[in-house]
Amino acid sequence: MKLPSTIQINEVGLRDGLQLESMIMSIDQKIKLIDALIKANVKTIEFGSFVHPKLVPQMKNTKEVFQLLAEKKKDVTFIALIPNLKGAVLAAEAGVERVNTVLSASNTHNLQNIKKSTQQSLEDFAAIKDYCDEKEILLDCTIATTFGCPFEGTISEDRILSIIDELIRTGVNVLSLADTTGIANPKQVFDLSSKVLEIWPDQPFNLHFHNTRGMGLTNVLAGAQAGINSFDASLGGLGGCPFAPGATGNICTEDVVHMLEEMGIDTAISLDGLLEASRMLRNILGHELPGQILKSGKSSKLYPVPAS
Amino acid sequence: MKLPSTIQINEVGLRDGLQLESMIMSIDQKIKLIDALIKANVKTIEFGSFVHPKLVPQMKNTKEVFQLLAEKKKDVTFIALIPNLKGAVLAAEAGVERVNTVLSASNTHNLQNIKKSTQQSLEDFAAIKDYCDEKEILLDCTIATTFGCPFEGTISEDRILSIIDELIRTGVNVLSLADTTGIANPKQVFDLSSKVLEIWPDQPFNLHFHNTRGMGLTNVLAGAQAGINSFDASLGGLGGCPFAPGATGNICTEDVVHMLEEMGIDTAISLDGLLEASRMLRNILGHELPGQILKSGKSSKLYPVPAS
Repeated sequence: MKLPSTIQINEVGLRDGLQLESMIMSIDQKIKLIDALIKANVKTIEFGSFVHPKLVPQMKNTKEVFQLLAEKKKDVTFIALIPNLKGAVLAAEAGVERVNTVLSASNTHNLQNIKKSTQQSLEDFAAIKDYCDEKEILLDCTIATTFGCPFEGTISEDRILSIIDELIRTGVNVLSLADTTGIANPKQVFDLSSKVLEIWPDQPFNLHFHNTRGMGLTNVLAGAQAGINSFDASLGGLGGCPFAPGATGNICTEDVVHMLEEMGIDTAISLDGLLEASRMLRNILGHELPGQILKSGKSSKLYPVPAS
Repeated sequence: MKLPSTIQINEVGLRDGLQLESMIMSIDQKIKLIDALIKANVKTIEFGSFVHPKLVPQMKNTKEVFQLLAEKKKDVTFIALIPNLKGAVLAAEAGVERVNTVLSASNTHNLQNIKKSTQQSLEDFAAIKDYCDEKEILLDCTIATTFGCPFEGTISEDRILSIIDELIRTGVNVLSLADTTGIANPKQVFDLSSKVLEIWPDQPFNLHFHNTRGMGLTNVLAGAQAGINSFDASLGGLGGCPFAPGATGNICTEDVVHMLEEMGIDTAISLDGLLEASRMLRNILGHELPGQILKSGKSSKLYPVPAS
């Protein structure tokens, strides 16, 4: 089984993970969680979104959170999600140095999610790119519904490749292929990942999965086998998309890191530190999380032999 | 990604799945579930265990259940678990034509589970095999804790291969490699599966996984990539072992079949039929099941576009 020797995990719990939670997390709680993630040696954190607070109330304190992160920026990359050029302006005003924008491979989902056609979003992307260049901000892009759409079904590979091509020609930094509603299967992930790495060997790709149908970790395994070495994951397996029916939890950071470690792949992250952070998240939210390792313990956990 | 074109799924929910349920399922309820499984075109069902009812009360009606299955035996293979020679005698008396016995790769787990050393169990296996030959009963064997033990940790590959070798020389029918407490990782599964298929290309192997640490489906994927084409699974993801700490649900039959179907692998099973059976199981037990597809629907499920 061919696998990369190292894999980077990007924590997206504070952005994608929180979107469906009714409890609004305070600035202080977010900072405490981020500190726990940093202590666990997580190096890339999508910490919030410059989206209108009416649409996603969890994100209303994104600017304040970032400003408290200033001194931590030496060791960690903080990424903000931006829905559009206005979001990029807000991010720039807050001093954010790396942003991630989203458009959907599915035209119908894009219309639902950001009220524009995919083609309009690609044009917007070019404008955002010009603005980010001017402000010296790195611009990532996530292609939602890459592996299928809850409204349209399968999206043709030609359409996916053509969107990727346009984003790369416009100068995207990291390009994420996202399975927004957890419908991707590992063969599909392996095939598409192999293809994009073959066509664009120098482009950094990242994969983003949800575990809605239990295939989240199989898709990480398949992507890694194809040679992808960067994955989004969400502490405790929180997650979902308010504008995509059927979307549930992201793949769980500690479960992914546990699996990769068990296979001998280096993530540089402390699993014990992650479990500490996940316990903190569970306490803040006041409910169980979908992740498994927090409940089961690691594979390496040994039990005493019962007295006979 | 190299995968088999067909895979056989063996339903073990009525045996392994039920062991940790406090509610004792009636003969009538078991027969209704088996009928639903047959309607879904499941071809191999581990329907019960000839174990002492004090140890596993769920199994006290195994003989009666089997006798009601008589007319269904043309199309379906019914397998009974037997812990020992006495179990084989009970199975023969009930008219069962195929049985599965269990021993542990871990000596400590074997002592906990069946009060004998692994070596003693291998000797017992030879005696059970003689008895089964005489009664014209097919004898399968499951090697528990193949991928690690909750008491001993890793079991050496040499020890695993030597146990397999002895069982094959004694004349085992299907040989199952079981991850009793859900600690296997997909690289380990791929490596061991590849190795045993290389050494014993003509021996039928089956894999048995639990999803305790979220890696259940990744292990099916890895085993399938190595060329294994037979897997145990439990309706709704029920399961656990009363004598193995940390053991939780088996991999979920409908989630496995869904993943395989999505990858274009033929299981001959009707997913809709399985979901019907799983709904019935949920109603009988009166609680939610760990499986995902029953909650989320299939990947192919389409949603209407909301009116704007």
